[in-house]
Amino acid sequence: MAKILMKGNEAIGEAAIRAGCLNYFAYPITPQSEVAEYLSRRMPEVGGVFLQGESEVAVSYMIFGAAAAGARIFTTSSSPGISLMSEGISYIAGAQCPAVFVNIMRGGPGLGGILPSQADYLQATKGMGHGDFRLLVMAPASVQEAVEMVMKAFPLAEKYRNPVMILGDGLIGQMMEPVEFPDHLKTEPSNKDAWATNGMDARNSRQRNMVKSLCLNPEELNNNNLVLKAKYDQMKKEEVMFERFHTEVDYQVLIVSYGTMSRVCRTAIENMHAEGIEVAMIRPQTLFPFPEAEVLSAAQKNSCQAVASIEMSMGQMLEDVQRCVQGKKPVHWYGKCGGDVPTPEEVADYIRTLI
Amino acid sequence: MAKILMKGNEAIGEAAIRAGCLNYFAYPITPQSEVAEYLSRRMPEVGGVFLQGESEVAVSYMIFGAAAAGARIFTTSSSPGISLMSEGISYIAGAQCPAVFVNIMRGGPGLGGILPSQADYLQATKGMGHGDFRLLVMAPASVQEAVEMVMKAFPLAEKYRNPVMILGDGLIGQMMEPVEFPDHLKTEPSNKDAWATNGMDARNSRQRNMVKSLCLNPEELNNNNLVLKAKYDQMKKEEVMFERFHTEVDYQVLIVSYGTMSRVCRTAIENMHAEGIEVAMIRPQTLFPFPEAEVLSAAQKNSCQAVASIEMSMGQMLEDVQRCVQGKKPVHWYGKCGGDVPTPEEVADYIRTLI
Amino acid sequence: MAKILMKGNEAIGEAAIRAGCLNYFAYPITPQSEVAEYLSRRMPEVGGVFLQGESEVAVSYMIFGAAAAGARIFTTSSSPGISLMSEGISYIAGAQCPAVFVNIMRGGPGLGGILPSQADYLQATKGMGHGDFRLLVMAPASVQEAVEMVMKAFPLAEKYRNPVMILGDGLIGQMMEPVEFPDHLKTEPSNKDAWATNGMDARNSRQRNMVKSLCLNPEELNNNNLVLKAKYDQMKKEEVMFERFHTEVDYQVLIVSYGTMSRVCRTAIENMHAEGIEVAMIRPQTLFPFPEAEVLSAAQKNSCQAVASIEMSMGQMLEDVQRCVQGKKPVHWYGKCGGDVPTPEEVADYIRTLI
Amino acid sequence: MAKILMKGNEAIGEAAIRAGCLNYFAYPITPQSEVAEYLSRRMPEVGGVFLQGESEVAVSYMIFGAAAAGARIFTTSSSPGISLMSEGISYIAGAQCPAVFVNIMRGGPGLGGILPSQADYLQATKGMGHGDFRLLVMAPASVQEAVEMVMKAFPLAEKYRNPVMILGDGLIGQMMEPVEFPDHLKTEPSNKDAWATNGMDARNSRQRNMVKSLCLNPEELNNNNLVLKAKYDQMKKEEVMFERFHTEVDYQVLIVSYGTMSRVCRTAIENMHAEGIEVAMIRPQTLFPFPEAEVLSAAQKNSCQAVASIEMSMGQMLEDVQRCVQGKKPVHWYGKCGGDVPTPEEVADYIRTLI
Repeated sequence: MAKILMKGNEAIGEAAIRAGCLNYFAYPITPQSEVAEYLSRRMPEVGGVFLQGESEVAVSYMIFGAAAAGARIFTTSSSPGISLMSEGISYIAGAQCPAVFVNIMRGGPGLGGILPSQADYLQATKGMGHGDFRLLVMAPASVQEAVEMVMKAFPLAEKYRNPVMILGDGLIGQMMEPVEFPDHLKTEPSNKDAWATNGMDARNSRQRNMVKSLCLNPEELNNNNLVLKAKYDQMKKEEVMFERFHTEVDYQVLIVSYGTMSRVCRTAIENMHAEGIEVAMIRPQTLFPFPEAEVLSAAQKNSCQAVASIEMSMGQMLEDVQRCVQGKKPVHWYGKCGGDVPTPEEVADYIRTLI
Repeated sequence: MAKILMKGNEAIGEAAIRAGCLNYFAYPITPQSEVAEYLSRRMPEVGGVFLQGESEVAVSYMIFGAAAAGARIFTTSSSPGISLMSEGISYIAGAQCPAVFVNIMRGGPGLGGILPSQADYLQATKGMGHGDFRLLVMAPASVQEAVEMVMKAFPLAEKYRNPVMILGDGLIGQMMEPVEFPDHLKTEPSNKDAWATNGMDARNSRQRNMVKSLCLNPEELNNNNLVLKAKYDQMKKEEVMFERFHTEVDYQVLIVSYGTMSRVCRTAIENMHAEGIEVAMIRPQTLFPFPEAEVLSAAQKNSCQAVASIEMSMGQMLEDVQRCVQGKKPVHWYGKCGGDVPTPEEVADYIRTLI
Repeated sequence: MAKILMKGNEAIGEAAIRAGCLNYFAYPITPQSEVAEYLSRRMPEVGGVFLQGESEVAVSYMIFGAAAAGARIFTTSSSPGISLMSEGISYIAGAQCPAVFVNIMRGGPGLGGILPSQADYLQATKGMGHGDFRLLVMAPASVQEAVEMVMKAFPLAEKYRNPVMILGDGLIGQMMEPVEFPDHLKTEPSNKDAWATNGMDARNSRQRNMVKSLCLNPEELNNNNLVLKAKYDQMKKEEVMFERFHTEVDYQVLIVSYGTMSRVCRTAIENMHAEGIEVAMIRPQTLFPFPEAEVLSAAQKNSCQAVASIEMSMGQMLEDVQRCVQGKKPVHWYGKCGGDVPTPEEVADYIRTLI
Repeated sequence: MAKILMKGNEAIGEAAIRAGCLNYFAYPITPQSEVAEYLSRRMPEVGGVFLQGESEVAVSYMIFGAAAAGARIFTTSSSPGISLMSEGISYIAGAQCPAVFVNIMRGGPGLGGILPSQADYLQATKGMGHGDFRLLVMAPASVQEAVEMVMKAFPLAEKYRNPVMILGDGLIGQMMEPVEFPDHLKTEPSNKDAWATNGMDARNSRQRNMVKSLCLNPEELNNNNLVLKAKYDQMKKEEVMFERFHTEVDYQVLIVSYGTMSRVCRTAIENMHAEGIEVAMIRPQTLFPFPEAEVLSAAQKNSCQAVASIEMSMGQMLEDVQRCVQGKKPVHWYGKCGGDVPTPEEVADYIRTLI
């Protein structure tokens, strides 16, 4: 399949369609509004539905409704919009419905700015909403990877009957890169007759299904939470994705970085290598589950003197890296959080201070 | 001052008044509706304002407005309501306004149940809303401690110009205990002329103030985030609160537990001590900042074979405990999350499995 | 075409589709929820759109948007829901957009009851919303007439670029009658390129259109109101519809009655005729424009001693009848307004009191 | 009492306080926002409450709540805001609660303009909301009269347990005139123990009260509507207010005009009198109940050749005048509706065309 030059936000929209998702409900917010713009035009062409909700709160419950009815469904938003969806996402997770959320992060907190940021790491991986649930979180570092992660997100959401989040940033959404939509990532929606409220009829001759997050009986609620916990434990075993870079050499510093930030780190590593300084990187592709074993193992390499979590946030991933490294090596943080992406030179300057 | 027998939710409401807070905006939700009920009657008696918003989203922005105008203000809610406030709380933190939020947690996710739970630990301490901000989080283990934490919360919120959260659970809210309202915890609201939009007049003859979270310039936004980060670093130095229990002996197991759960653990520890099994506990009173050094130090005691995070959640505090213990000792989790509080016997049974 | 036995609400929904309207946005409310239920199933079959708004306020602005974009659009609601739409309807009229509103009236005011009523006559014909505008209002007396009025409503709305209302009642909506959908009432949507914001492209190569109700310049606003007034004057000339019943005899009493109430009056008239009492009826089919000349003329008949406005309301049409009759004959009112439809006997008993 | 020079909107706010109303809930909209501005400052000074709702829909139900609880309550808004309140006002009327609404009309329909208008006459007097109810409507022609009508509105609302509306226009709201607040118009709130949900206690030892507009039983609903009808009939007998101008001479034309428009007509009449043309005016002070008998009687004067309804609307009062005049004399309309108030010369020019 030939590659097409597309803007990230448009490619994300197209990827959902290619993945077999014909329902998209959203509320516009910079820097991801192009997804809505693109799909408002594109969905009708493929017999799909684009629906703009009245607010992000509304969208989250429209997503819940569609997911509960067994439809493949996704939405896109940016940081403040995701906060408004946090109650709804908790309901969706509690009711065990599959849905895909794309967060094209902007700078925060509050209104913040509209430039790229990675300031929603903790929200996506830890405390998104009340109650015991997690999202499966993937973070693309290129438009092509965004496409592939979106396409993978639907079967993963259905495998776990749990929300999946793609955590991008304004740069991923706004930049143009050549992309292709791999046919092998197109999947058929799973059979949802066993649980979805998709209508009882001759076709599926089944018991009445009920989708709910309410469990007034404490034992029932505890059991529901045990089911959720088992799913998150399974994700930790089966879904960890990461990329190693330059780990084959005897590196002095190990960088952990993801998304757009990791691309800058890659250039910094190449430049330092040319200078004779060896630095390696683990790039988590899934942020939850986090590549815990890999980060620990890479940090334990004898040559490695220090680990650096490099982020476009004030150290949100740092705690995860610290947790994994278990005190075996010092763990540092470098980052910026205003929409200003650190340059390779700034990263290299920082890394040199650690040696 | 004589002790009064009060229900936790009512004591929380009274504590706010005694702390000098005369503004309370809220939306009712079980199991904290008694706060609103109590203050709807009590606020007018003291010349204060109780205002029921149209929704929790509305309340969060009413809080923002009052806080920006320099008023002492607080609200109470329970898990789903807090999720709905998460966008607003991010705005308040980004705009550096002081405000107090009480979360009387119920079981989740989603609608969940209305019985006690600790399932919002991650939300409160990590990812409550988008962007780089933190709440100062205190977790009371008794109605008296709830009273004192509420009274301390206002000057702390003003010291840091940051939201402070009291993370209770349905048991703290619903049970009756004798309480007193210590006069020394009554504080005068800080002078807010330097930043609040409290009106320019002869009284404060000052520059025009602006309260905002919008920083379209990346350097300005980065600087705002650096200011926030400095505040959270200062909290880690100055505000950590915890309680040691039975740490003076050679304990075999270290429990980390907070809130209502810690009361059960205390009984379990006493019972096991009577049997000859020594177990100690660190009870974090602040969940952010977390008593990192204390947990590490207590875990490193030679006699200690294992650390157990005991929670009314599926292991939300576990990651913090793991991070602190740095692999020095094995870290385990025990808990339930359906509103059913584990009994001392269940806790003791679990602890015995670790020895 | 064969007749089909259909419930009024369903027939109304089907009529819209047969009239070429493929867009229906609504919010459910008794006694018209079956329209939404029917069209939620039926619209997708014909490639149309059913969309449930978040509230009637929301629906009114969704209607405005679709109408401004040139789509044939309609909604249905019942009394309180129509009140919530009154601001939006004023905007639609002010911006001169065509749209069709069906009000299946229930008893009021306030929540009232859910049984049939005609208590929204004044709202529909006079003060529906702020500002100088009118609706063209049609009132069906049978399911078949409801079908035909709905089908006529779309071209009328487009002829005048003004909202058209079908004012039914719970009985029309709930009862089943055999209906047919006359092919000759199917119309093509008018060409809206001259004013609608339907997209500028090669197809319509036109000036930029703007749809708005804001006219800050008083002369512009006055002119807009003169345009509206001219439309309402034209309606009075061209669109008056009514039915005469038993007017060929020398009647002693003239009844003016519409909708379901007129069916009862018809039976009462037949019964009284059998007794030797002659009573005639004018049944307005359009409530605005009102059949002023016809009512005056019929009242002036020498044999006629009195005029009676018979309504399922407390005399809302009475003022219109009084205005038309101009003091030539005494004008009386009889009615009930609680959902209890007066019986033919009750009507006849009342008429006898006038003779 | 000395006269004070005040802006109309501020005088309206002050009048409510002087009338003993200490509760004001509102949402700002031009041209009446100064009421909210004034009362946001003034209410706290007198121990009263100013509360800005989230929307006019919200305000209408906050008014309902306060009125049901027995508080004197009022709000102010302008045309679109009143439309949004129309559902709530219907509820308040249906539930028989006293409340005062001030509409400082702006040009419509839709967004219209922000200049003075009388385009909400039909809404106020006829079709404000669904169901069989009416407002008692008063229309001031000066700031002083606005003050007095506001002060009278509260006891009238309580006498009838029905909403009362003051229908002003942007000119009344914006212009400054010397006013006094007559002490004799200050009234004590009526005793509401017989019906309001004001709390059962030792003070009022009473039965449980229920305030509601829901009557699912048709007989109950019909009875409620008969009670309402009886109140409106009583208003027609007891509350009609009007002013005669120049009716003592043998006038050739009778003007019916109200509010700001009547002030212009008065000047026109004086100017024409100086020219030798005699014109009289009936100025309705209550629009509902309308001075029906007076208009008929004045129109029947032998010298009178024509009646003219002169309005800042497209003839909304015309139908009422026609209805009263009963064809005895020709009835005409003159007006403008864009915020542009007709001048005395324009009015005189028009009147001359009728002679």
